[in-house]
Amino acid sequence: MKTHSKLLALVLLLGVSIATAADDPLPSWNDTAPKKAIVAFVEKVTKEGSPDFVPEPERIAVFDNDGTLWAEQPVYTQVLFLIDRIKALAPQHPEWKTKEPFAALLKGDLHGVAATGEAGFAELMAATHSGMTTEEFSKTVSEWIATAKHPKTGKLYTEMAYQPMLELLAYLRANGFKTFIVSGGGIEFMRPWTEKVYRISPEQVVGSTGGLKFEVRDGSPVLMKLPTLILNDDKEGKPVGIQRHIGRRPIAAFGNSDGDLHMLQWTAAGSGPRFCLYVHHTDAEREWAYDRNQLVAGFREPVLLPHDGRSAGLTIVN
Amino acid sequence: MKTHSKLLALVLLLGVSIATAADDPLPSWNDTAPKKAIVAFVEKVTKEGSPDFVPEPERIAVFDNDGTLWAEQPVYTQVLFLIDRIKALAPQHPEWKTKEPFAALLKGDLHGVAATGEAGFAELMAATHSGMTTEEFSKTVSEWIATAKHPKTGKLYTEMAYQPMLELLAYLRANGFKTFIVSGGGIEFMRPWTEKVYRISPEQVVGSTGGLKFEVRDGSPVLMKLPTLILNDDKEGKPVGIQRHIGRRPIAAFGNSDGDLHMLQWTAAGSGPRFCLYVHHTDAEREWAYDRNQLVAGFREPVLLPHDGRSAGLTIVN
Repeated sequence: MKTHSKLLALVLLLGVSIATAADDPLPSWNDTAPKKAIVAFVEKVTKEGSPDFVPEPERIAVFDNDGTLWAEQPVYTQVLFLIDRIKALAPQHPEWKTKEPFAALLKGDLHGVAATGEAGFAELMAATHSGMTTEEFSKTVSEWIATAKHPKTGKLYTEMAYQPMLELLAYLRANGFKTFIVSGGGIEFMRPWTEKVYRISPEQVVGSTGGLKFEVRDGSPVLMKLPTLILNDDKEGKPVGIQRHIGRRPIAAFGNSDGDLHMLQWTAAGSGPRFCLYVHHTDAEREWAYDRNQLVAGFREPVLLPHDGRSAGLTIVN
Repeated sequence: MKTHSKLLALVLLLGVSIATAADDPLPSWNDTAPKKAIVAFVEKVTKEGSPDFVPEPERIAVFDNDGTLWAEQPVYTQVLFLIDRIKALAPQHPEWKTKEPFAALLKGDLHGVAATGEAGFAELMAATHSGMTTEEFSKTVSEWIATAKHPKTGKLYTEMAYQPMLELLAYLRANGFKTFIVSGGGIEFMRPWTEKVYRISPEQVVGSTGGLKFEVRDGSPVLMKLPTLILNDDKEGKPVGIQRHIGRRPIAAFGNSDGDLHMLQWTAAGSGPRFCLYVHHTDAEREWAYDRNQLVAGFREPVLLPHDGRSAGLTIVN
């Protein structure tokens, strides 16, 4: 009897803790429509025997990164990395003092940099993101991300991840979803830290991709990073990146700007239950309020294609 | 006491069945050096506290497909698919009767096709592997692979998978490995059937990759297959495909021909324990004996780079 009582107590204890977790899988979310919609979707697709049941291998969820999983203001983190790299490399490049866009950037003249347009940006990217091995680049990113601080908050960039989204990632994975990043950011820039921050492994990171070349250097094989662009994983490029890396259509997609529109359209247009969500930044006090009038990440076209008369399930988180 | 005895019996029963599985995880493999080497490697990297222990997320194993996981004789299966597609599409293309390389192929004159060289092959690929949506192509492959028969054995191509390799895939996965295909074959050609045949999901298939274009067609978004080649996932291209899709270096690699050499080199050159294996086809009676003198899949360079004085662990399965 004594053993039975102990067992019963253990079961009750477990029962309570399970019930608590089930009651609130997303504790940082306000108890409003978006949260209810997420929970309803997850319960529906995971309920065996239900007409909306989705087998586990097909539970693919894709997340934009900048502005969706972590902050993207005042400017994309990777741009701040690029600026720091140019400064760090400048002593080896005395010619940059008089050569644009390097000269403008080193003087802190961002309007001057912007004036050099896409060609100027490509030069900055080539100087900082190519000409080294993948392992050298990964090491540089790891060192930078471990020490560089956000200009407004003074926090590490990895501390600028959104707590509600971290909970959402964990909740989806606990329900058999495979979570992927699909970002306009560089794939090699994200991989060194996504596993630690988001529990998303390198093979589940899709991003803008540069060329690579296999070479043997001092008797060891290396992969050299080239300045060529293999995939611009933004806008129309996101469904391309999804197909190339994942090979099946997601059933859930999360974004925050026009760059995510095609990914959400592609997700919404599949058959069976779908879930699409836009994060809309409206809290200027605790982070930023923006959509149309800022430097990066315009949010002008929050419209999904209609599909088969089925609602695309668009939810905007305010 | 009675309950205790039953419990003991159950434990013994479980003990026996576990012991049996552990005794022979690879029942179709002869009990020779390659099998012993595989088992020793797996036991070493999965043993917590051992200096060779590898954490689960880093247990990445990559497999060539043609000639490693399934047969590639008398010619790559995808080439037979291509030939069947040209025949099936010929009625819509009367001009092919007089246009090379189509005319030669339709007459069964493979030497004539070969005479048109790489340019001719690119034309055949473009005609059969582009100009349709990814979903249309996937459906075509699925229908073909479900019905087409191997010219020598009369079996479905999916029945031409090697039983010892299926056991090896399962054994590695049971020990926390993530198994990937890294093949010169087309990524979109393999994905429709690899999950069923190998239990390898689409997102773990790396292969030669064509361009894709996002379009809206009749109000629905589609991905059109383009004739451009984004990745030739063979030879030097295999480490590139591995980095692009997996983003970390495998600790085990399995191949059978020169096309796999760079993948094995890249794998072997990482730090920590590594395992590389070449399948050498020597059984003309039960399948094929070949290495140097056949149409496809030359095996002329079974040499790995030395690395840090550590043996690359090359094993050749006869």
